[in-house]
Amino acid sequence: MKLEILDSTLRDGAQGADISFSPSDKLAVARHLAELGIPLIEAGNPGSNPKDAEFFAEAQKLSLGGSKLVAFGSTRRKNTRPQEDAALAALLSAGTEAACIFGKASALHVAHVLETSPEENLAMIADSVGFVRQAGRRVIFDAEHFFDGFAENPDYALRVLGAAAKAGADTLCLCDTNGGTFPEQIGRVTALVCQKFPGHKIGIHCHNDSGLAVAGTMQAVFAGAAHVQGTLLGFGERCGNANLSTILPNLQLKAGYACIPPEQMERLTSVCRALADTANLSLAGNLPYVGSAAFAHKAGMHVDAVNKLHASFEHISPGAVGNKRRRLVGEVSGKSSLLRLVRRYQPEISKDSPKLAEIMDQLKRMEFAGYQFEAAEESLDLLIRRCLHLQEKFFTLDHYKIIGEYPLFAQLSPSSAIVKVRVGQESSLTSAEGNGPVHALDLALRRALIPFYPCLADMRLADYKVRVLESDATTAAGVRVLIESTDGQRTWRTVGVSSDILEASFLALSDSIEYKLTLEKEKI
Amino acid sequence: MKLEILDSTLRDGAQGADISFSPSDKLAVARHLAELGIPLIEAGNPGSNPKDAEFFAEAQKLSLGGSKLVAFGSTRRKNTRPQEDAALAALLSAGTEAACIFGKASALHVAHVLETSPEENLAMIADSVGFVRQAGRRVIFDAEHFFDGFAENPDYALRVLGAAAKAGADTLCLCDTNGGTFPEQIGRVTALVCQKFPGHKIGIHCHNDSGLAVAGTMQAVFAGAAHVQGTLLGFGERCGNANLSTILPNLQLKAGYACIPPEQMERLTSVCRALADTANLSLAGNLPYVGSAAFAHKAGMHVDAVNKLHASFEHISPGAVGNKRRRLVGEVSGKSSLLRLVRRYQPEISKDSPKLAEIMDQLKRMEFAGYQFEAAEESLDLLIRRCLHLQEKFFTLDHYKIIGEYPLFAQLSPSSAIVKVRVGQESSLTSAEGNGPVHALDLALRRALIPFYPCLADMRLADYKVRVLESDATTAAGVRVLIESTDGQRTWRTVGVSSDILEASFLALSDSIEYKLTLEKEKI
Repeated sequence: MKLEILDSTLRDGAQGADISFSPSDKLAVARHLAELGIPLIEAGNPGSNPKDAEFFAEAQKLSLGGSKLVAFGSTRRKNTRPQEDAALAALLSAGTEAACIFGKASALHVAHVLETSPEENLAMIADSVGFVRQAGRRVIFDAEHFFDGFAENPDYALRVLGAAAKAGADTLCLCDTNGGTFPEQIGRVTALVCQKFPGHKIGIHCHNDSGLAVAGTMQAVFAGAAHVQGTLLGFGERCGNANLSTILPNLQLKAGYACIPPEQMERLTSVCRALADTANLSLAGNLPYVGSAAFAHKAGMHVDAVNKLHASFEHISPGAVGNKRRRLVGEVSGKSSLLRLVRRYQPEISKDSPKLAEIMDQLKRMEFAGYQFEAAEESLDLLIRRCLHLQEKFFTLDHYKIIGEYPLFAQLSPSSAIVKVRVGQESSLTSAEGNGPVHALDLALRRALIPFYPCLADMRLADYKVRVLESDATTAAGVRVLIESTDGQRTWRTVGVSSDILEASFLALSDSIEYKLTLEKEKI
Repeated sequence: MKLEILDSTLRDGAQGADISFSPSDKLAVARHLAELGIPLIEAGNPGSNPKDAEFFAEAQKLSLGGSKLVAFGSTRRKNTRPQEDAALAALLSAGTEAACIFGKASALHVAHVLETSPEENLAMIADSVGFVRQAGRRVIFDAEHFFDGFAENPDYALRVLGAAAKAGADTLCLCDTNGGTFPEQIGRVTALVCQKFPGHKIGIHCHNDSGLAVAGTMQAVFAGAAHVQGTLLGFGERCGNANLSTILPNLQLKAGYACIPPEQMERLTSVCRALADTANLSLAGNLPYVGSAAFAHKAGMHVDAVNKLHASFEHISPGAVGNKRRRLVGEVSGKSSLLRLVRRYQPEISKDSPKLAEIMDQLKRMEFAGYQFEAAEESLDLLIRRCLHLQEKFFTLDHYKIIGEYPLFAQLSPSSAIVKVRVGQESSLTSAEGNGPVHALDLALRRALIPFYPCLADMRLADYKVRVLESDATTAAGVRVLIESTDGQRTWRTVGVSSDILEASFLALSDSIEYKLTLEKEKI
């Protein structure tokens, strides 16, 4: 059976306590979701947030394949006309094919939060849905607090759905807004709603306050819901929304529902990592399916059993979601993807070659130290080239010294750097000042090298990200620096890890410069 | 109805990829669990791990109130006698009243992993359970892979339980070892087992590989299971074990089961934080019930609604589990949440007061510069206190200088810092070295202030996060530094923003120190 999936990372997900997306982050999130083939991307509330309205204007330029953006908004204010409602006007100007409108399904909330009559609430819903329908848009109706409302007053909760349905909403989405309803109850009530509204698509929207959002969502689907809302990594207010990275494989791989194109499922892990990176959060290692430990085996006995029979401690094959089995002692995985990369340089290399094992070892040592190459393929490429003795050493760092100071006197910048490099027999000593220590280092390093390699003048950093590793060790913790560089035509990404942010930045910068020089010389 | 809870943090939990308990950590974990009134604490596998055996000897000295330790072990090896089995002997020498013995309930595993006959497996179980019973111990039998085994060959899976029951196990615990079984199936099979073994206590042990461990555990309880295994924070191999910090309040507060003494439930949050601290992991903010964001409200509309009606966006009262409501103030949030905060100091201030508008303006200017107070309420508190002229200035920074260098000579750390501060009329100049510039700055700053404020010796950083703002501006971009500090009793969070990571870190550190000093002086 086919399910319609709506991801709300950019709307409900943005309510998460740690989440703050910049405009360019938002575009990146939409692209990640589209890469996975998520059909509906709920991308903001243009009526309540002017920045969301700007985003929709910008996002029209994105090419999202089969994915469509959805704008979200509330019903008209009480005792007004929808034609006069600025938020509804903003919802329409987002220009999406489908709009999601939420209205209250709990009589208690209508009285105490909205402070209006039950009848006016029904009119607000009907008017707003009708108004957006008349503008030719598809309407998904989110019935806020539906399950709590149904428990208090089932008749009123159903009348709310009826008002939206009659006014033209084709999808009625039942929300467990507080996340307190148990799955059994969600299943029972969803089945009843499916019976009452046979001509409508019934949706489900769960929150994880009881740790049951995945289970509740699935129970609703088993009861007949065909539209599923969640956020890819479970981002959302309080304990988060239903986690789609768990729900999609549960339903698609294990229960036979069609959620995303089957060939996309193998991208699940990499898309989730990219999304976490964009949000500047680390992906929890124990996250089902996509966490780095989701298929990690530690106990000696279990590793043994997994070697004898993969299914012995794995509920699915890790490759099905693009993840990897890890044996925390003596890992042997990932070899085949590395083999593919190495064969670009040595097509004849075999899977059992000692050279391949040597590169694999080096890679594992670096990953253990905190390196991650998912978002820095060009550093991985350089690593392979170095192991194969194909990489020219374009320069050597002799020394750097960085000074940061406060307060500042006169026109001084807060940081200055002195860098000494060697190219062949020649030395170059330069200094530069910058807004921070990394900025000063970057400027000084490139200033030192440009006389030897003028093409470096074309290149600039496009993105710079810092991730603190094992953050419990506080400011003494390791850091991973990821940088993206561009010369206008191409972009490449490199990584550096150290307990010192300056050294980690230097390593990433240095790889970036080496990659640019390799590009120029070898046209790789 | 009364349920028997068994926590396996020290045994199955220790299999988690990030978990590594020292001997003193283990004693601390046992004390935390006892503080919560967890009746059974499964504390290790003395037969497979000599360190666990030592722990049991040491733990006999602990006073654990009503909680009892349980030792865990496997059945005898194939084709031997239990009397000759060193692991069973070690299990007995742990000296616990109850022992947990696991055996295989899947015919497939018996053949391919154990590599023995179905009959020998039954004999291994019966012999081992009987042997431990004869030594006068209570036996809990863990049927490993029970649900997968039942799906393959229900008859054999039931015979396994029968062998353990007949040999004297009083509790038959059904394990979803791979975490792949859906709750409905768990409920159905558990109900059937309860019917077949009316004289025995039936247990449930779930793993979270499908994100369903909480739901599966609850479904088993609803079907008649009376013994529940899990780990307090969900620690465990791969995606972890069933999370008791979610299950206990779900079952006790919302479904009327008796799990722990009711007066202990209000300690849940503090015990979970202490346990995370012992494990040296940060507690996920979005963890149901006990996470720092579990009752945090961000969207302006939601904050408004919660002010009008607490239940509007909360499924239980946060105080019931010892947690707190948080209203996050951010750009999507409104004046009313700021008003509440200001009223803690000036109860009479009105919504239209020019003072409030001034604070709001200041807040907006800082947010525009990249500040974010959702995750740094204590910096916001300081900001309000400063605007109201209530905040004492405890110290002034005169100067800092930070030097980072590469390569390193001798025993030098990569970074060193010199800090000069003034307290009243006195000056203090100190230096420190660290792994990176921020580490060195943090150490030097606190070293300079401790002579004036000895209470700063109690405080330490618990978390340090860096976010690059508008990353298109690359290494010249602004950075936001968030730090979490603790003095063992309380935690607080502060923020700093600058184009220079050193200055941003200094601002966050400085707020953190000021907050600690304000806490000590005013008991705010």
